[in-house]
Amino acid sequence: MRIAIDAMGGDYAPDEIIAGALQGREVLGPDDEIVLVGDETVIRETLTALKASADTFRIFHAPDMITMNESPIEALRRKPKSSIAVMAHAASHRQVDAVLSAGNTGACVAACQIRLRTLPGVTRPGIAVVLPTYGGPVTICDVGANIACKPIHLYQYAIMASVYAREMFGIQSPRVGIMNIGEEDAKGTSLIKKTRLLLKNDPNISYIGYLEGRDLFEGKCDVVICEGFVGNVILKLSEGMVNMIFNAIKAELMNRNKLLAWWFKSVAKNIFKKYDYHEYGGALLLGVNGTAIICHGTSKARTIKSAIAACKRFYDKKINTQIVDAISKSTVPNNGQ
Amino acid sequence: MRIAIDAMGGDYAPDEIIAGALQGREVLGPDDEIVLVGDETVIRETLTALKASADTFRIFHAPDMITMNESPIEALRRKPKSSIAVMAHAASHRQVDAVLSAGNTGACVAACQIRLRTLPGVTRPGIAVVLPTYGGPVTICDVGANIACKPIHLYQYAIMASVYAREMFGIQSPRVGIMNIGEEDAKGTSLIKKTRLLLKNDPNISYIGYLEGRDLFEGKCDVVICEGFVGNVILKLSEGMVNMIFNAIKAELMNRNKLLAWWFKSVAKNIFKKYDYHEYGGALLLGVNGTAIICHGTSKARTIKSAIAACKRFYDKKINTQIVDAISKSTVPNNGQ
Repeated sequence: MRIAIDAMGGDYAPDEIIAGALQGREVLGPDDEIVLVGDETVIRETLTALKASADTFRIFHAPDMITMNESPIEALRRKPKSSIAVMAHAASHRQVDAVLSAGNTGACVAACQIRLRTLPGVTRPGIAVVLPTYGGPVTICDVGANIACKPIHLYQYAIMASVYAREMFGIQSPRVGIMNIGEEDAKGTSLIKKTRLLLKNDPNISYIGYLEGRDLFEGKCDVVICEGFVGNVILKLSEGMVNMIFNAIKAELMNRNKLLAWWFKSVAKNIFKKYDYHEYGGALLLGVNGTAIICHGTSKARTIKSAIAACKRFYDKKINTQIVDAISKSTVPNNGQ
Repeated sequence: MRIAIDAMGGDYAPDEIIAGALQGREVLGPDDEIVLVGDETVIRETLTALKASADTFRIFHAPDMITMNESPIEALRRKPKSSIAVMAHAASHRQVDAVLSAGNTGACVAACQIRLRTLPGVTRPGIAVVLPTYGGPVTICDVGANIACKPIHLYQYAIMASVYAREMFGIQSPRVGIMNIGEEDAKGTSLIKKTRLLLKNDPNISYIGYLEGRDLFEGKCDVVICEGFVGNVILKLSEGMVNMIFNAIKAELMNRNKLLAWWFKSVAKNIFKKYDYHEYGGALLLGVNGTAIICHGTSKARTIKSAIAACKRFYDKKINTQIVDAISKSTVPNNGQ
């Protein structure tokens, strides 16, 4: 397979992205290829600085760049030669099989949505992130692609994320829950209640009911469905929370015993490694007609490498074909919503 | 002041609630009074079991109980003699100055809203919770009273929570942020964008901009405004997350060195104490014409005691009077929305 990587996107681009691409070759086969997309001069210089041959990768020249703060649609219109736009264009012309970016998420989602379009039957793409929890990996969809959700969108997220969890983690019949403010059927917004009925009535989905925030970490479910707004808050809150707790522990330990504080570092490191979602390497944009992985803006080489591995797995397992199949068997028709 | 406590509400009622009431007397003055609301026989038996005199508290008999799973409005209609209904009724007839419950949150909010009504100028009450963070206490409003928010509601939450943070924590000009999915002005739903304009244009509010989930713990703001749905997820997710991380640490330590795991217990305990929002004792229902505190269903005696202290502080500082004053000076009129 051919993976296009946005060399210019992310807080540590291009250095860490290109270093990640170099590491990524380890997880790819001899027939796989990585294409770097971005300013050719910058890419070649970075490769030299990293002591890699300047012709290690094919390069698609993209002189422009969309920054993190730009409004997605507007930026795509104004910068057709940005790395994200060039990358999506290449994918839509089947010059590459997958795209990967740690840049402006909104722009990446919009570019993929416009260029790749949705899979047959899918109404809206959703970003799926895997949170490693004490109870196992939990796939959350959507974490920010769609902040104006309708029941059909959430319903299809359940189908797509179930296929994803099954294929990626071997969970035969992933348990699906809807994020809500209480477990009782009467709780929640009308969106939530309508989605519940759709999920409950579909025999192909292992719907287990409403979830509350705390249930996410207790091994109750394999897939969590929510609006993009809520999912995004969940994701970023989890990040902030982990950092705060470890800072608090560090401060407490430093106060007590510096040697033990030092020793605890390796404990913390191990835990971070186990529960760090960077390990899972980015988020899949489920529902687009192609393979698109969005990485966190703070991604370093390790995350890019994991993302390349995730990309390959997603592609090799033909997850999109299975999503199309699952959507075609779904009990709720797509009325073009 | 006279505080009515719902003796029947909560996972550990009545034992822990009544034990908390007993402890709560320590934080009250000689002129203050606690009234227990619930089944009189059960309350007297519990007092005896706790080795307290059966006439320690005045009791308002309420033979019925609303369980955690009941639909609030329906339950209030069907059970006019439930502890929550009796408590709210007593408050509306000025037989007590404050109400406190660890029972069904929805029922408690609804009962207070119906019986006490809102403060002059306030459109909707909101639940404010204080999260103790590494950067100081952060007040979040709303965490579940209102899941159909309009901009005016969020705007007024900002005003009310600012007064609250100022009076309770001595923060002169609390920095207010709106929970969103990005920091850029163009991000978010139409509700968020409209609220932003209202806050930005009010010179009495120290509006600092949009916040992302991770900002909550980094000392960037003193007050966070969000829809009840999002706030509720934030609150419960934080809880679950803390538990998961400490479980993960425990498992990791047990694997390495049992002695150190045992020693770490006291570290964890200290951190829990510092960052446990139970310390702040429940959530204030801001905007109702009275003092209403809602405690977590899992509250034990210690939390009830803290809640009683919070109740007293809220009442003594005449926070409601100041909220009415602040709302009357606000730049956005309440159009009865």
